[in-house]
Amino acid sequence: MKRTNLITFAALAGVAAALAARAAEALPSWNDGLAKNSVLQFVAKVTQADSPDWVPPGERIAVFDNDGTLWAEQPMYFQAFFVFDRVKALAPQHPEWQTQEPFASLLKGDLKAAMAGGEHAAGQLLMATHAGMTSEEFEKSVRDWIATARHPKTGRPFTEMVYQPMLELLAYLRANGFKTFIVTGGGIEFVRPWSERVYGIPPEQVIGSSIKTKFELRDGKPVLVRLPEVNFIDDGPGKPVGIQMHLGRRPLAAFGNSDGDLAMLQWTAGGRSPRFCLYVHHTDAEREWAYDRASSIGRLDEGLAEAQAKGWTVVDMKSDWKRVFAFETK
Amino acid sequence: MKRTNLITFAALAGVAAALAARAAEALPSWNDGLAKNSVLQFVAKVTQADSPDWVPPGERIAVFDNDGTLWAEQPMYFQAFFVFDRVKALAPQHPEWQTQEPFASLLKGDLKAAMAGGEHAAGQLLMATHAGMTSEEFEKSVRDWIATARHPKTGRPFTEMVYQPMLELLAYLRANGFKTFIVTGGGIEFVRPWSERVYGIPPEQVIGSSIKTKFELRDGKPVLVRLPEVNFIDDGPGKPVGIQMHLGRRPLAAFGNSDGDLAMLQWTAGGRSPRFCLYVHHTDAEREWAYDRASSIGRLDEGLAEAQAKGWTVVDMKSDWKRVFAFETK
Repeated sequence: MKRTNLITFAALAGVAAALAARAAEALPSWNDGLAKNSVLQFVAKVTQADSPDWVPPGERIAVFDNDGTLWAEQPMYFQAFFVFDRVKALAPQHPEWQTQEPFASLLKGDLKAAMAGGEHAAGQLLMATHAGMTSEEFEKSVRDWIATARHPKTGRPFTEMVYQPMLELLAYLRANGFKTFIVTGGGIEFVRPWSERVYGIPPEQVIGSSIKTKFELRDGKPVLVRLPEVNFIDDGPGKPVGIQMHLGRRPLAAFGNSDGDLAMLQWTAGGRSPRFCLYVHHTDAEREWAYDRASSIGRLDEGLAEAQAKGWTVVDMKSDWKRVFAFETK
Repeated sequence: MKRTNLITFAALAGVAAALAARAAEALPSWNDGLAKNSVLQFVAKVTQADSPDWVPPGERIAVFDNDGTLWAEQPMYFQAFFVFDRVKALAPQHPEWQTQEPFASLLKGDLKAAMAGGEHAAGQLLMATHAGMTSEEFEKSVRDWIATARHPKTGRPFTEMVYQPMLELLAYLRANGFKTFIVTGGGIEFVRPWSERVYGIPPEQVIGSSIKTKFELRDGKPVLVRLPEVNFIDDGPGKPVGIQMHLGRRPLAAFGNSDGDLAMLQWTAGGRSPRFCLYVHHTDAEREWAYDRASSIGRLDEGLAEAQAKGWTVVDMKSDWKRVFAFETK
């Protein structure tokens, strides 16, 4: 070994040791392995001052899917629980719902019958609970619900069903000058009321699906009224569109868990400089849920194949994460 | 005068002196007067730690109209110059435009005849120059144009037609923990390519009008294609809608210059805690332009009446600003 090689080797070993030390501090719920290392290496690559791939802090933008990436999404999307609970809460003001589908079946507790009407039924339930009030009234209904509702399996508040390793990842990226965004197929105004408290992500950094709203003066008081009309679906090919609409630039890193996130990861990966794409793979039936190709919720099929082909990071929840939820006892 | 009152008076005098000193440094192009004082007093009120109206930095959001508020808008909106120049640049690829209105008249230099077709003609020109390319191609066309185009009256690049006092105001607010946003009736992707360099406002803090876009894979390469269909008009009652869509919370301060900004100012003023609303009134025919109630561009009529009734700050450009543009010699 030549002397210069020796020096290079020593320098690299030093960098590796420093990285490892930083990692242990930064991502305590991640097991050492390929997934964790790929995160650390990418962050080092774009943040170290002498790196040829250094990126200015303002351009270090990381986008995260929410359902199944930051919090759980089983046995169904958590926003669906909100819809069902709100229908029950609003039922006294709507006596007609006692005989009108899909409300009648839902109020009788027959979810299957309620959903027999497919997308049309789902749309009716969504609009009945998300439209017809002001933006402030809707925000209050989300705040009140999220403060009290519980997950049917764990009995925990939904905001505790967030993945501890992903919270650490968000904090780690922000500590390295990244600006973190949520890009959710769920409702933008459903996530905003609690995203800052739970994820450290302020409302203006949440991108999501929306219905139309209208500005009005009511007795001289300005209000935004939520209308029963879809404005934007932030899912699948909608995610890059939503990202461009809100950010106006391509993210540096993207994190998802399903085929609905594939276009977002493709769009991110398509940038000129190095980019980072990561899929969370639900492989842990014991601590969370195990599902991918055959799941109706959060299906990961095409995306998994593309991740393998492109060399994107795939987190194996069972082996890569020391724990999934903060409330786990062991 | 009682001793306690004396102390209070001395303390207040001290605060006033400190404020005045800070003001002279912070807003050098503003004359002392009601307008400048109202800004300083509001900023002090929401930022001083012992103030009952203190607001956490993350919630100090200030929104600015662009045309006529941050840069000039006469003799027509600057984006219209972009449209006309682009039609000329694209004409060789469109031989049919030589005989097709409104393109034919425009290419002959007869703007009046070109615009005789009203909104329909304007829409055709807009879509011919803003749609049909990828988002990256459009961004490049804006960057190339803004680097070379000149204002017909001053011969200056359009990015020098920005108001020096407003640049100082943006910087002053940011130095006091405010996050500054543009909320423009103009195109969101027309402003983003230069907003950071000119205003210090990054692309993700620009809200504006938009056309629809579509995600596509072209030979495996992900692109966003701009479609000839209006997505959102960020003007008048659209401004509060755009603000809620992008920010998810009500601004603390709003700055505009026309009736098209009135809903934004009303929405801002409607918040519970103290808010700040300011109109820039174009009163200086010598250094800039003088227009308000009767102007077809940037009409300020209803808004001026409401500002007077509600006690909002109205900047008299002639008397409140020491200079309008940085390039002024005196």
